Amino acid sequence: MANGNAPEKVSMIVFSGDMDKVMAAFIIANGAAAFDMQVSMFFTFWGLKAIQKGNLTGKGLMGRMLGLMNRGGIDRLGPSKFNFGGMGRWMFKKMMKKRNAASLDTLMKQAREQGVRMIACEMTCSVMEIGKEDFIDGVEMGGVATFIAEASESKFSLFI
Amino acid sequence: MANGNAPEKVSMIVFSGDMDKVMAAFIIANGAAAFDMQVSMFFTFWGLKAIQKGNLTGKGLMGRMLGLMNRGGIDRLGPSKFNFGGMGRWMFKKMMKKRNAASLDTLMKQAREQGVRMIACEMTCSVMEIGKEDFIDGVEMGGVATFIAEASESKFSLFI
Amino acid sequence: MANGNAPEKVSMIVFSGDMDKVMAAFIIANGAAAFDMQVSMFFTFWGLKAIQKGNLTGKGLMGRMLGLMNRGGIDRLGPSKFNFGGMGRWMFKKMMKKRNAASLDTLMKQAREQGVRMIACEMTCSVMEIGKEDFIDGVEMGGVATFIAEASESKFSLFI
Repeated sequence: MANGNAPEKVSMIVFSGDMDKVMAAFIIANGAAAFDMQVSMFFTFWGLKAIQKGNLTGKGLMGRMLGLMNRGGIDRLGPSKFNFGGMGRWMFKKMMKKRNAASLDTLMKQAREQGVRMIACEMTCSVMEIGKEDFIDGVEMGGVATFIAEASESKFSLFI
Repeated sequence: MANGNAPEKVSMIVFSGDMDKVMAAFIIANGAAAFDMQVSMFFTFWGLKAIQKGNLTGKGLMGRMLGLMNRGGIDRLGPSKFNFGGMGRWMFKKMMKKRNAASLDTLMKQAREQGVRMIACEMTCSVMEIGKEDFIDGVEMGGVATFIAEASESKFSLFI
Repeated sequence: MANGNAPEKVSMIVFSGDMDKVMAAFIIANGAAAFDMQVSMFFTFWGLKAIQKGNLTGKGLMGRMLGLMNRGGIDRLGPSKFNFGGMGRWMFKKMMKKRNAASLDTLMKQAREQGVRMIACEMTCSVMEIGKEDFIDGVEMGGVATFIAEASESKFSLFI
């Protein structure tokens, strides 16, 4: 959909760490990237789980508690409804596989290959005691100013 | 607010199936349509419930389980908070009626009469085993590319 | 980021009353205001809690019940995850303080000082039996038309 020199942009805030919402975010990101749009995803609050490696995080007592309760990693996300302690995640994965829908892990890999920018919110990382080394490769660190600059130039922006 | 030949556009992704969020989506859609804007609502994931007829869906075992647990139909949606097994839905309806606020059902009918486009996400339909025959009249089927094309031309886009 | 005579605009619907989401909304609002953008925040449904004084609301039986269950005031908001009956709120506040992150109360004060417009949804106020006198100073009343007009002129619009 790009029709000039500079590529058209799309920006998203991924606030939620729910499997289904993160999946929707990556499907939109990959779709826009397929149209040669430049996509920036800003992961903040619970959304940071999606781009974490899955190691334990947190240095202080509360940071470690939060790290344990809310352990990151793309395979640990559960859906926003009907999770039933992991059962929902398993069922969704199975239904998606049966219908040849791409898994969340695959969607994220496609996004990286298509050059989708993944930016981790510096402020949340500081509060939740998550460091750059806790994220998968290619994740940038950024603040709210980065989001506002991108969103102001974007064809559309979403809060997910 | 249209000031040229082509109407101005608004696009929305309705991801949530919560009564209150779906209601907010239709209020915005009807408001924009009243300004002669062309509104496209993309229903995906749990949002599909809002535009289903309410019949049982799903062919395979898991699809049928999901169809039962998450039976569709605009009258089956409960609010995101204070539902208490249906009590919240009843109370909200009653409070809204008392104040002459339009019901969700009425809001949806108004949207259809004003020409708001309702598009069901093909991929979610496939995974959840919901067919075109399970939707109310006038619903179109579409993919992420349809949304991105619309959103890129929209004055504003929302993820609800 | 303003580069003409009229300031660039940003608009947000704050539908959620979760502490973390309201916090994200104010962080974005303050960030945009720092770039001299004119920010309008439309508080609706549960989001109204954030701009209430915290007094009891509701005249009829159901309005009073809702006012009690969902008592407003910026300090009463709990996070969308891990609240544990208030424990989460306490922990988040403590972790944020340790890292010198601004509290929700401070973020809201900054927003007011920077001229961020806070608009309460008239229709929700009527249904939930909340009056203008129940809001903090400076809150305007407005309808969906106000939002659509603002969003149509905004660089980006978010539904939070």
